[in-house]
Formats: sequence, structure tokens, C-alpha cells
Amino acid sequence: MKPIDIKRVKITDAFWSRIRQSVRTQMLPYQWEALNDNIEGAPKSYCIHNFRAAARLNEKRRELGDAFEEPVFSYPGFDIWPQEGQEPDSDKFYGFLFQDTDLYKWLEAVAYSLADFPDAELEALADSAIELIKSAQHPSGYMDTYYILYGMDAALTNLQSNHELYCLGHLIEAACAYYDSTGKGVLLGVARRYADYIYERMGPDGDVPGYPGHEIAEMALARLYGVTGEKKYLELAKLFIDRRGQSPNYFDGERRHEAERLGKPYRPDKNPDHNAYSQSHIPVREQTEAVGHAVRAVYLYSSMASVGELTGDSSLKDACRRLWQSVTREKMYVTGGIGGTCIGEAFSYPFDLPNDSAYAETCAAVGLVFFARSMLGVSPCGEYADIMERALYNCVLSGMSQDGKSFLYVNPLEVVPQACHKDERLSHVKNVRQKWFGCACCPPNLARLIESLAQYAVTEDEDTLWLNLFMGCEITKQIGEASLNVSVETDMPWGGRLKIRISAPNAVRAKLAVRIPEWTQPDKLEISLPDGKACETVDGYMYISGLWEGCSEVNLNFSMPTRILTANPKVRECLGKAAVQRGPFIYCAEGSELWLYRLNLRGKITARENNICGVPMVCLTADAKKLSQKSWELYYQYSEPEEKDCTLQLVPYFAWGNRGEQEMRVWLRV
Amino acid sequence: MKPIDIKRVKITDAFWSRIRQSVRTQMLPYQWEALNDNIEGAPKSYCIHNFRAAARLNEKRRELGDAFEEPVFSYPGFDIWPQEGQEPDSDKFYGFLFQDTDLYKWLEAVAYSLADFPDAELEALADSAIELIKSAQHPSGYMDTYYILYGMDAALTNLQSNHELYCLGHLIEAACAYYDSTGKGVLLGVARRYADYIYERMGPDGDVPGYPGHEIAEMALARLYGVTGEKKYLELAKLFIDRRGQSPNYFDGERRHEAERLGKPYRPDKNPDHNAYSQSHIPVREQTEAVGHAVRAVYLYSSMASVGELTGDSSLKDACRRLWQSVTREKMYVTGGIGGTCIGEAFSYPFDLPNDSAYAETCAAVGLVFFARSMLGVSPCGEYADIMERALYNCVLSGMSQDGKSFLYVNPLEVVPQACHKDERLSHVKNVRQKWFGCACCPPNLARLIESLAQYAVTEDEDTLWLNLFMGCEITKQIGEASLNVSVETDMPWGGRLKIRISAPNAVRAKLAVRIPEWTQPDKLEISLPDGKACETVDGYMYISGLWEGCSEVNLNFSMPTRILTANPKVRECLGKAAVQRGPFIYCAEGSELWLYRLNLRGKITARENNICGVPMVCLTADAKKLSQKSWELYYQYSEPEEKDCTLQLVPYFAWGNRGEQEMRVWLRV
Repeated sequence: MKPIDIKRVKITDAFWSRIRQSVRTQMLPYQWEALNDNIEGAPKSYCIHNFRAAARLNEKRRELGDAFEEPVFSYPGFDIWPQEGQEPDSDKFYGFLFQDTDLYKWLEAVAYSLADFPDAELEALADSAIELIKSAQHPSGYMDTYYILYGMDAALTNLQSNHELYCLGHLIEAACAYYDSTGKGVLLGVARRYADYIYERMGPDGDVPGYPGHEIAEMALARLYGVTGEKKYLELAKLFIDRRGQSPNYFDGERRHEAERLGKPYRPDKNPDHNAYSQSHIPVREQTEAVGHAVRAVYLYSSMASVGELTGDSSLKDACRRLWQSVTREKMYVTGGIGGTCIGEAFSYPFDLPNDSAYAETCAAVGLVFFARSMLGVSPCGEYADIMERALYNCVLSGMSQDGKSFLYVNPLEVVPQACHKDERLSHVKNVRQKWFGCACCPPNLARLIESLAQYAVTEDEDTLWLNLFMGCEITKQIGEASLNVSVETDMPWGGRLKIRISAPNAVRAKLAVRIPEWTQPDKLEISLPDGKACETVDGYMYISGLWEGCSEVNLNFSMPTRILTANPKVRECLGKAAVQRGPFIYCAEGSELWLYRLNLRGKITARENNICGVPMVCLTADAKKLSQKSWELYYQYSEPEEKDCTLQLVPYFAWGNRGEQEMRVWLRV
Repeated sequence: MKPIDIKRVKITDAFWSRIRQSVRTQMLPYQWEALNDNIEGAPKSYCIHNFRAAARLNEKRRELGDAFEEPVFSYPGFDIWPQEGQEPDSDKFYGFLFQDTDLYKWLEAVAYSLADFPDAELEALADSAIELIKSAQHPSGYMDTYYILYGMDAALTNLQSNHELYCLGHLIEAACAYYDSTGKGVLLGVARRYADYIYERMGPDGDVPGYPGHEIAEMALARLYGVTGEKKYLELAKLFIDRRGQSPNYFDGERRHEAERLGKPYRPDKNPDHNAYSQSHIPVREQTEAVGHAVRAVYLYSSMASVGELTGDSSLKDACRRLWQSVTREKMYVTGGIGGTCIGEAFSYPFDLPNDSAYAETCAAVGLVFFARSMLGVSPCGEYADIMERALYNCVLSGMSQDGKSFLYVNPLEVVPQACHKDERLSHVKNVRQKWFGCACCPPNLARLIESLAQYAVTEDEDTLWLNLFMGCEITKQIGEASLNVSVETDMPWGGRLKIRISAPNAVRAKLAVRIPEWTQPDKLEISLPDGKACETVDGYMYISGLWEGCSEVNLNFSMPTRILTANPKVRECLGKAAVQRGPFIYCAEGSELWLYRLNLRGKITARENNICGVPMVCLTADAKKLSQKSWELYYQYSEPEEKDCTLQLVPYFAWGNRGEQEMRVWLRV
């Protein structure tokens, strides 16, 4: 199973069209301004600034030829900002050292957007950005403005902490997307030159036998192999995966060299978990627990699944299945968020899923969507698409405001404004979406996922079309010489009806695989099939197969009950609490003193259409009980709590925090 | 009301005698070794080392006279340790810059101990330490080895962060205690010289119109006034209190001067709470909420109450009453612990009392005991003694192990070993007591409180004796020329019986005030009074008054039910949970998977004598329900929980963590 070619799906869905439109018309233009440091009051990015500085340096390099003096690296630090009150130096690098990737992610999102919505002006803007990147590339093919500007002599010496291969990964992703969408190969050329440089230095015969400190190059190289057919890219991806965590540890070696350079005695890290942060503590095939920085982890696992599939390496696929279990059975929030601790933006230990101090980074939820899709490639099980949907409709969408102009980096499941303001332990939690971040990985990551949504919703092999996510769309499926037009109409995500029209100009055998979502009652499933079509359920998908000719229609109705969920009792934070789900959405309460309320499990929950900031959505009203204050003492004799009947208004989690500062809570007392 | 002269009370109580004996025979000798860096495997103190270095420097100063070159201060930092692998330099200061106080606290504890248990060897050791301190004192009278060794030119320039006046405070406390106990005045002389020096520099005509960054000098100076009758000490205490938080802020001025010294532009602190850390954000009389570093806060409040009482300043007493409410109605754990957040070892916002990440420093509970006693001086209300008892019997005693050899700095109300090991957010929480700490403020603070316990248990004015805490003891009360011998026998703290024998060689009018503890049922109180004695209850005390002559006996029986406590619903962490108290003790469960248990409120709780590490105590067995695991899924459809009947073993909180690593929990689900 592979993602479908993005140009063969047109999303017509009301729910997603609005979001995609706001990404296209609000977020992408806004981000472009942010990359150019034109947003008043937002932290500066310096992204375009850095590319310009590198391009100018190359200009000088060309002009001066042998007389050019290469900058010598002097360890300027991880993030570099102009001194307060001083103008930035136009020849210097500023910002976090992975700042280049913001432009790549923007270009990737633009690429997907152009596939659906041709826009000559936007394309010209993107082309000019690509020319800038090209002119910033080092003559060797190397492409990271931080080292180009501060000194190539230190390039590839600190793979663990610096992000050169992370930049490679995002460059490749953007280049492949832009090539797929527009057919233009300039950026692909830049990416290939950088990949070739890295293959030379880090491939089987290279002088740097390391691997990325922040994974993503692995999945990108596998994609580059797919686009170019060049085997060495897949080989390099596999090499990175195979080397990871082998003993002696490569990153320990880097630290030893660094100590030698500084003339300090090298002491092995006191913290045995140090390398676990980047999943390099043990070889990947021996890893059974998801650990470390959550984004890094799911990027790695995604690539392990893809490379395992592409190379037929079943040991990699087995490791992925175990890690999938670890993530989704022990370390995932009910919203599909991952990363229980802000320290290292990381997975905490199993079942440690605090709600108020959750990290649940938007990027990590995006990464979980990647991982889920890669796992679908390993085996088409509904479970993977269920989790993909959970992460996408809840934690990913929560990352942006309804108007597409402000963002969350961290997605808590419980917010008390007073706590956010007064408790420094929650300083990572924002209870109102932010305009931009100094480290702005999440907004463009969100954009590139939403703009390529079709490739997650629909996957295919030769004769089968999988509908993983439900949304109105028009799909053209090629089967050998024949083609099948599939049109999906639905009232999802708020209702459960699905009308699929299949038209086949010429008779063709094909299978349509429709996921049975985990949130429906399978025994109440209504389905009407065209004559002569068989239907078989395997691993959470209904396979509707037969000979298709002319127009046919499949009608489905998934019941969409409001569900009360409980957590495994090992999740200490959720004990005695319940979460409410309807369809793909987790709901949350907003208001004040929410901790005093409990769901009345003997009461009812009613759904009704409502709107939040002008956006229509189904909200819930739940019967509840509110605890009365009996005493003003701090501690007093226990007696049966006094409660008053009341109702709680619940909104889809993704829409929280759009109406000013108030409390929010997903897990409600019962 | 004043604390009774320590020499006129002899504690005979079984419960306290054991603890006091372990402080005297284990803790004090152990601490002496720790101060001398003789404990294998414990962090070094460098306390005695620093005094020796300062004494040597004075020696040189005397030898060289005018040729002596004073060291010039070069800002060596807040805590200074020898480079790894290097021997410490015998002429340098090491450790935290308040390290001197560890010796003062030790001497204070020794002083109290000598009052009760004369010990020539210990007294000789203490005398030699006092001689060392004397020889380390700067000729000017100044007495802080950090600046004496690193450069007196910078003395009193960073009152906010450095601890010179904190050292003054502890020096005075030790000196007064040693003088009271032994009648020896050497240390009192040292303390007075330092106090005189500070009066000169910081008094009404001094050149340094500041106040302590870490309060304690205020309460110590008030005590020094009591011992010496010298008014200027009280004047200085009041000056420190009055200046605190006035505008322009003195500490902001220090920061501005420091910026000027370094040639950096001064920017006012971005964090408006910066000065709240040391309660210097607004004038003390305007303070209504307890904020900042908890130990600093209660030391300040204690001094405000004492100075308010001594000077008749009702505005100070009013402020104290408000701050008392803030601490005990909004910011105190049920164990009497204070300090809800590890960030700044500080009070969090009202009702933010997390159980697992609690700070609840032992020193802060000790400070709360001080504050309570000072408030008793302001007005003899049982509430103050109730809180004093709560803090003392729970959070203070929790600070030491049953064998008196290991200590807790932080006193959490919930511990899961896995969380302590794996969650860096809980890195301040230890689930096993430690041998010693680099910053070892708590063990000697605990020692000085326990050794002077009588002064908290019993207070007096001319004709009244208040029994605030219940313990077997022999008291001699002087009333004019007459004296009264009061002997208390009790089975407290485990039982509620109290037999008070009063013998009066000559007839004398006097009042005996017995606190009615908050944990008893007042309607079930049994009391038998001698003939002709009146009994009146005022503000939580029973005043038994009359003419005493010959031998009389008062018998009391306080019912001691096992109580189930609930917290104000604003304490979010405790919602749906209960704590168990019996007598003065809060109980806790120890075991594994404690979060799965809930108290069966329809069941029973039985008390029985047990022992922990050989120490007899009353433990409880509570009927409980244990939640069964229904599914291995992370989230699933809610259904009524399945539970099994079981029992939970509860031990007094102070005795937790004495039997190896296991879970602990005070607040149990109900």
C-alpha cells in the first residue's frame, strides 16, 4: 500500500475545505511573512535572512576564488540572537540552528497546495525562494546555512546536537513534494546534491560513520529513492537506521572528540538516558519502549517502517510493531498527543500521562500520523488508521486557531489559567494560542500535513483503494490501463453517512477498502452494496470487491454514539475520570472551576450543532453534578459531598481556547 | 505569654524521649562529624574548614599588622567546591555561602541538650567550637567566613542573595541558647560584637540602609534584646522589618549597583515576583498573601509577631494574623508542610498543593512551628498550637529517620518510586532518606527544635502556665516568690489521657491552661478537677484556676477518634480523596499500586499497636476497595469499576520511608 498521488485526489469536503483554505489563505502567507521577519511583535525567525547571508558568502567565494578565506568555526552556540538593541548583522546566522527547515516545510506545504489550487503568484514566490536556497548551497553540495556561515571545518562534527541531517531531511521532503506537484526539478537538484554530499561523507565509504541526531533524513531519503529510483538513497537511509545505537556509541565518540578539542578530560555521561533522548541508546531492532524526544522517536519509527517495507527487512518491521504498541498502549494521550514530559519534550515512563503538564507537541502528533501511515504500509490494519484519525482530528488540529493565525506548540489536556500564569512548572503550557514561536517547528509542520491530507486519507496498491479517513473527495484510481472514478460524499466528521459513487468507463476488477472506525458500533453498521459486489471484513477494513462497470453506489451509515471513555487504571492521572468522544472527536469542557464538576453517568449527553468563532460544529451538553463548597476551612471532617444538578458544555478538543482565556479539561470526574 | 525557661522543664515523655535521645546520641555526634567532613560518602560540608581558614587569616592579620594585605573580593559565586579530583585549599572558603550557620545550629541544639542532659565532654567540644568561631571573627566584629576569606570590601553589598545577616541570626540564636543553658558568655560576646557591627553599619545612622535577604536576624535580634536587655537590638529588628519592601526597593538598588560595577546596563527585573521570593515586594504591613521562599516567609512572620508583641505595634500583629490565615487556610499541606513548589522552594498560589511534587521543606515546617509560637505570644488561641502540633508531629518529624541518622529535605505526600527515578520534574523528591546534604540546613534545624521542645510545649506569663503540646514532663513554675510544681503524665500521642499533678509548697493563685486539641470531640471530653477549681474555656484552652495548695490532680481524657479528613474543594489535587488522622498524626499508606485502592467509607478502621524499625507506634488497618484491571487497552468504554474488598495498612506519616523503597500516599481515593 502506498499513499496516492496527490494530484489524483480532490478534497471537496466541507470540514476539511475550510481548514485547508485557512491554511492556504491565512497560514501560508502569514508564515512567509514570519520567515521574512515581517510580523510585528512576533519573535524573529531569521530564516530567509540566513539563506541570504549564505548566498552572499557564496557570491564572495566565487568572486575571490582561491583568495577566499573560509570562516573558521568558533562554536557560537545552539541558538544565536543579536544583542538586545543591536541591529542584526546581515552576514551572520541567527536563530536556532535548524532554522533552515522552516523554509523547507513552508515550501513543502506550498507544493501540496499548488497541486490542488494552482496559484501562479504563490508558485513564483516559491520559485524565488528555491533560487535563494540554490544560491545559498555550498559549492560542495553541503546545505546548512549555520555551518556555511560559521565555518564548514566543523560540519558533521556534532551530529548529535546540531541539525544538519534534519535540514537534509526537510530539504528532501520539500524537494520531492515540489517536484511531484509542479514537475520542477530545481529544488530536487539542490536536495540531491546535498544528499550526494552526505552519501560521500557518511555512506559506506565515508569518513563520518554517524547518523542523524534528530531523525527525519531516514524517511526523506526513502522518499527520495521513490522519486528518483536511485538506490543509494535507500541504502543511506538504511545505513543510518542500522548504525543507530550500535556500540561503541557514535555520539559518545563525538563528545569525546569535543572534550579533546577543548582540552578537557572526557567523562562518559552520568545520565544513562542521555542517548535515549535521540533513540540511540541501543540498536533500533532491540528497542521495545518508545523513549526520548517524541518527535525524533516517531520520525525514526516511521522511517523504520518504510525502510523495512522497501527493503523487505522483517526485523525492522517487527521492531516497529513493538514500538507502536509501546506508543499507543502506554504513552499516548486520548487526544493522540504524545510526549508526557516537557523535560526533553519527551516520552515519560509508561502510563505517566499528566494532563496539565502534558507536552503533547503538535509536531509529535504530526509525527504519529506519519508513523501510522508507515505502519499501514507494513500491514493494512484499521488500528493504524484509527490512531492516525485520533491524532489528526484532535492533537494536530488543536495546534492551530480557528482562523489559522495562531498556534499551539504544546497541547495540554487540562488548563487552569491561574496555574499557567503562576506555576513556573507549567511555563511550557500556553492557554491562548501564540502568533509565532522563536522555535517555530510546529506551524509549518501542521501546514505540510494538512496540505497533503489526501495522501493519508487515501492509499492504494495495484487494484485496491483504501479509504482510511472519511472526507468528501473525488479520486481517480488507475488500474493498469483502466481507470475508476470514486466520489465520496459524507456528512462526516459530524455525522456517520458515507455515499461512495464509483464510475468505471470500462469494466475493471477492483477493491474498495473502507475502514470501520473504532468509534462506531459495528453491529449497527448499515451498508447497501451494488449488485454482485462482495464484502469482506479484514483487520478493521471492509473490502468491497467485484467487477465495476458504469456507475455504482455504496451507501454506508456508521452509528456515531457519544462514548464515555475510561483510561487504563495505570494512568494515575485519569483515575476516577472519564473522557467523552463522539465520532473522531475527543471533547472537552471549557469554563471555570471545572474541577468541581463531574459527569452524571446516569444523565444524558445531547449533541447539537453550534458554532465556535463562526465555525459550525457539533457540541455536547452533558448532565453533570457540581460540588458545593461546604466549608472555608482548608481541611475538615469528611462527609458525603453535596452536589447540585447542572450541565456541562463540551466542545471538540481541537476547538478549545478559541474564545479567550478560560479553564479547559478533557478528563472529567465521574 | 513567653516560652518557659528551658531549665525549668524536664521532658519525661516516652515518645519524645526516644526521639530526643536519638537526636542527642545519634544526630548531634553525626552532625559534628558531618561539619568536619568525616562522613564517608556524604557531600562535604566545609563548615569547620571555613572557620579554621578564617581563624588562620586573622592570625596572619595580627602577625603582619599594617603590612597585612586584605583579600580583594572577586565574586567567586554562590557555592564553591574544589575542582574534581583536587584537594581543597586549606585557606579557601568552600560550600554554600551560608555554611557557617550549620555550626551555629548545631551549637544551639547542643545548648538545649546540655540544659536537660549535662555532658561535660559535649560541652567541652562545644566550647572548643566556640573558641574557633571567636578566633575566626573579623577584628571589626563582622562574622561571615565567606567575606572574611574572599574580601571584606564586598561585605554587605549583596544582602539579597548572600547570607551575612542569616549568619548573624543563627549566631545570635546559638549564643542566646548557649548562654541560657550554660551561663557561658563567650559566644554571646561574639554575637553581640557582630550585632553591634551590623547596628553601626545598618542601624538608623548606618551606611547600609538594607535588610536581610534571608530573614532570621529579625527574630534573633528580638531574642538578643530579651537576653541582654539592650534596646538597640530590638530597634534594629524593627528597622529591618519596617524597611522591608519599601519603595524604592533596596534589592533593586543592589542589582543596579552590581550592574554598574560590571559596566552592564541595569534593567529592572522582568519578573515582577523576583522580590516576592524574599517577601520584599511590598512593605510587610501591606502583605496579605504568604509568598516566596517558604522558610524565609515564616521566619519573617515569626519576627513580625514577636516584634509586634514586644513593641506593642498592632499593625504588625494585624499583618501577622492575615498572613497566618493565608498560610494555614490556603497554602498548608495536611501534614503541616508548607511550600507547594520546588521552584524557589516556595509557596505556590492559593490552594495549589500538589502531593507528589510538594516541596514541604523540613525547615519550613520548623519555621511554621516558630510562627505558631510567636502567634501564641500575640494571642493565646488554641488554633496556633493546633497547627504547631500538626507541623511538628508530621512534617517536622518526617524529616528524620527512626534511627536519627538520615534525613529528608523535601516531604512529599505521595511517592511512586518509578516516578522519582524517571521523572526529572520530581528530582527534588527523595523516596529514601539521605545521609546528609550539601545544603544541610534541615537536619540541624530539626535538632535545635527538638532539643528546645519544652519551650513550645509549655509557655507562661506571670500566673498562667499553658500546656500547648501534650507530653510527660516536670515543670517548675515561679509565681512571684512562690513556686508550683506541675507534673504531667500522659499516654499521648497514642492515647488521650492526661494526668496533671500540681504541688504547691505554699498556697498560690495560678491558672493552668490546657489546650483542647482540634482532633478530639469536645463533647466527649472527660475531666476531673480538684475541689474549688474553676474551669473556663477560652479560645481553645481550658483555664483551670484557683488557689493551689499542697497536692492536687487534674485528670483529663481526650477522645481520640480516627478521623477521615477532606480538603477544601479548591485543592484540586485532593478532590475525591481523603486523609486519615488519629490524634496529632496524619496517616499514610505504604505499599505498591496504591492509586488502585480507595478507602471504604462504609468499612471500619482499626487501630493497633505495631512497631516500625523497632519503634512502637499505633498503626491503622482500613477497609478498602482495590480496583481491578479490566482491559490492557489504554482507553476503552467506561463501565462501572470492578473492585475487590481488601484492607490498607496505614502508618503515621512521620514514620514513612523507613523500610526501604516503596510507594507512599497520604491522600487516598474514596
